[in-house]
Amino acid sequence: MSRPQPLSGFPELLPRQRIVELQVVDHLRRAFELHGFANLQTRAVEPMDQLLRKGETSKEVYVLRRLQADDRDTSDAELGLHFDLTVPFARYVLENAGKLNFPFRRYQIQPVWRGERPQSGRYREFWQADIDIIDQGELPAHYEVEVALVVADALRDLPIPAVRMHVNNRKLSQGFYQGLGIADTEEALRIIDKLDKIGADAVAKLLIDTVDATPEQAEACLKLASISAADTSFVDEIRALGVTDPLLEEGLNELAAVVDAAAKAAPGFVVADMKIARGLDYYTGTVYEVFIEGQEHLGSICSGGRYDELASDGKHTYPGVGLSIGVSRLLVPLLQSGALDATREVPTCVLVALANDDDRAAATGLAQRLRGRGIPTQVSPSAAKFGKQIKFADKRGIPFVLFVNDEGTQIKDIRSGDQVTIDVDAWNPPAEDLHPTIVTA
Amino acid sequence: MSRPQPLSGFPELLPRQRIVELQVVDHLRRAFELHGFANLQTRAVEPMDQLLRKGETSKEVYVLRRLQADDRDTSDAELGLHFDLTVPFARYVLENAGKLNFPFRRYQIQPVWRGERPQSGRYREFWQADIDIIDQGELPAHYEVEVALVVADALRDLPIPAVRMHVNNRKLSQGFYQGLGIADTEEALRIIDKLDKIGADAVAKLLIDTVDATPEQAEACLKLASISAADTSFVDEIRALGVTDPLLEEGLNELAAVVDAAAKAAPGFVVADMKIARGLDYYTGTVYEVFIEGQEHLGSICSGGRYDELASDGKHTYPGVGLSIGVSRLLVPLLQSGALDATREVPTCVLVALANDDDRAAATGLAQRLRGRGIPTQVSPSAAKFGKQIKFADKRGIPFVLFVNDEGTQIKDIRSGDQVTIDVDAWNPPAEDLHPTIVTA
Repeated sequence: MSRPQPLSGFPELLPRQRIVELQVVDHLRRAFELHGFANLQTRAVEPMDQLLRKGETSKEVYVLRRLQADDRDTSDAELGLHFDLTVPFARYVLENAGKLNFPFRRYQIQPVWRGERPQSGRYREFWQADIDIIDQGELPAHYEVEVALVVADALRDLPIPAVRMHVNNRKLSQGFYQGLGIADTEEALRIIDKLDKIGADAVAKLLIDTVDATPEQAEACLKLASISAADTSFVDEIRALGVTDPLLEEGLNELAAVVDAAAKAAPGFVVADMKIARGLDYYTGTVYEVFIEGQEHLGSICSGGRYDELASDGKHTYPGVGLSIGVSRLLVPLLQSGALDATREVPTCVLVALANDDDRAAATGLAQRLRGRGIPTQVSPSAAKFGKQIKFADKRGIPFVLFVNDEGTQIKDIRSGDQVTIDVDAWNPPAEDLHPTIVTA
Repeated sequence: MSRPQPLSGFPELLPRQRIVELQVVDHLRRAFELHGFANLQTRAVEPMDQLLRKGETSKEVYVLRRLQADDRDTSDAELGLHFDLTVPFARYVLENAGKLNFPFRRYQIQPVWRGERPQSGRYREFWQADIDIIDQGELPAHYEVEVALVVADALRDLPIPAVRMHVNNRKLSQGFYQGLGIADTEEALRIIDKLDKIGADAVAKLLIDTVDATPEQAEACLKLASISAADTSFVDEIRALGVTDPLLEEGLNELAAVVDAAAKAAPGFVVADMKIARGLDYYTGTVYEVFIEGQEHLGSICSGGRYDELASDGKHTYPGVGLSIGVSRLLVPLLQSGALDATREVPTCVLVALANDDDRAAATGLAQRLRGRGIPTQVSPSAAKFGKQIKFADKRGIPFVLFVNDEGTQIKDIRSGDQVTIDVDAWNPPAEDLHPTIVTA
């Protein structure tokens, strides 16, 4: 077999990079669980009819076929790989509604697949970390505040560049367009969503051509989109535009509540930004996008919103609000550029050296005593020269080598060269050496 | 949308079941890392030519197709979902050999997919937890002992029925058949592998019909297969059969070393069992199967072996030894039968009750102080009657409800009804209540 080549769009990590990713994922898990979110794992596949309900993503689905599929086996519905974690979650909620307690809060950290052409920053397989709160019948608006604060907690203390959450509210934008007299407010939203990509002039032209806006209406839409504020001052700025509408009023109140609560609980994290639209039409309230500050052009690393109609079984509807962190999108570039690294490439803290190969059973016993107290330990592969065993540890970043000599059991910090006699059942490494940690360039 | 139905062969768990699974997986992770295994995650897909290298599994592969695949896009190799974690690992090692340090030890916990007909205990999507140690050129035999001890540690203290590892050695069996005068020793192994399924008479007949064994040779093969021992006494028993062969001798020594070391380090866990053959022909040394004691007929919940030729890039070969724990195969039946359950269905330890809806910001502040000290906390969905808020906690198994009244901040253990005034910044729940734990029926 010749040397295999990487598959474009399917990033894989080296062991030391994976240590970083795993620690970040553990940090997210911990944050979500501290807020009472239960973990779920849904299967990788969904029936194609579920996946194709949202037309715009259908082009990205990977369809599955059993290599030895049997034509007589009619039980096989056509299956595809999920392209997000929201569609599977909505299906899971409907399927298990009788066994779940609502409001139901869950997190899910899994890969998703999109069969699109790979390009920079886009992957065909990538990991997402989603949280959602879903209720039966009605979902109180305070959850739209809460999920923003959960994500603020989850992203805090991560070794990533400064990020900021931009929020808007669908009711606010659509109410404003409605108050202006634009009929197709959903299409207007989709056009405004393109502002960063195509610029103000092209957006104005599209509004005029597509939703029959007058030049004055188009200008008002652009004015609205230009408003942003880290506090509730945006409310007066929008009112000063002179448009009135009950839906706009509702949106203003809801967005003000989110911004106000976030400004108190997570100062500086949330900014109201009227150009945030979110392309997907199932959002009905607050919408969120998190950007790396100063790198907004790279796209969001986390996004979501409130949805009222995503899941319904005829008897009940299940409104919800959720956010999805793009784990791969956030981390893979930082790992590949070397901006993030781990202090070592193995969990091992201590290598037990061997004076001769007959000592392996005794060395294994010593290693097991350290493991029993939570210290990751492995035994040297062979009784090579001591210098070679030190080199084995050094290459992997293992900080300590333990060995037995005439003076007893000794441990050497191979970075400093310090060597001390220890009691195996009492010695502990410095806390920062017990496990690998993340270092930033 | 009507209520979706489960997909046969794709088991999904309810939140409380998932809590159990996640804790078991965390336990495995911790055990593997204590032994110095680094985590890897490989992509879900492999090129079809990689997946089809092992002919016997090809019928089980799920092939992928992009829904909107473009005929002009010739860059797309045909891809399939991996059916185990060994093939992707071998490919990963070859692809990244220049960036890895050998011997390389890694663990991998991921789903695999097999498009076979679903039947009891067989899934189309299921989770495996694999460990392997792989070297460049030569792999010392002591790793065949070590991986057995790692798995003993990993399975110890899990809330599962008693399990036992049955080990054999390919050299031992093949050397024995060779010494007997049977030419096609690999086919003889595959026939012996069927012993539990088809019985001794059918095996004898197959040996006679397929590999030209005499009735006496077939009887000797069955005698060998009947030998098992928890210590090295099997060596003399086999020698007493009067067959001699250098390969048999090698196998006897290697298996004795594994059994001897395991008997000392993990008494009672390992038994030498000469009928263990393992169907896959890439194994070349020790082979392992772990069974639930008394339920051997259900098949193994963990298996593996040593392989010498799985990965080679022409310049180097990469011999290895590994074991794969069938996480879904082990847990899903125990979860579905109710033999395993969690003490609650949410991570939440404390619910902060609301006296009225205006208190939400203050309640969120209290919750955040508890979270800051690692106590999973959520705020009540509404200022309903206190009894209703207690019921909200009770339904989910949340043990504590916190509330503020004239006497200060109080906490109620809703199981006992005990209610005490606390300092929010000092109170801690009993250690066993901080996180959900696993209960066995």
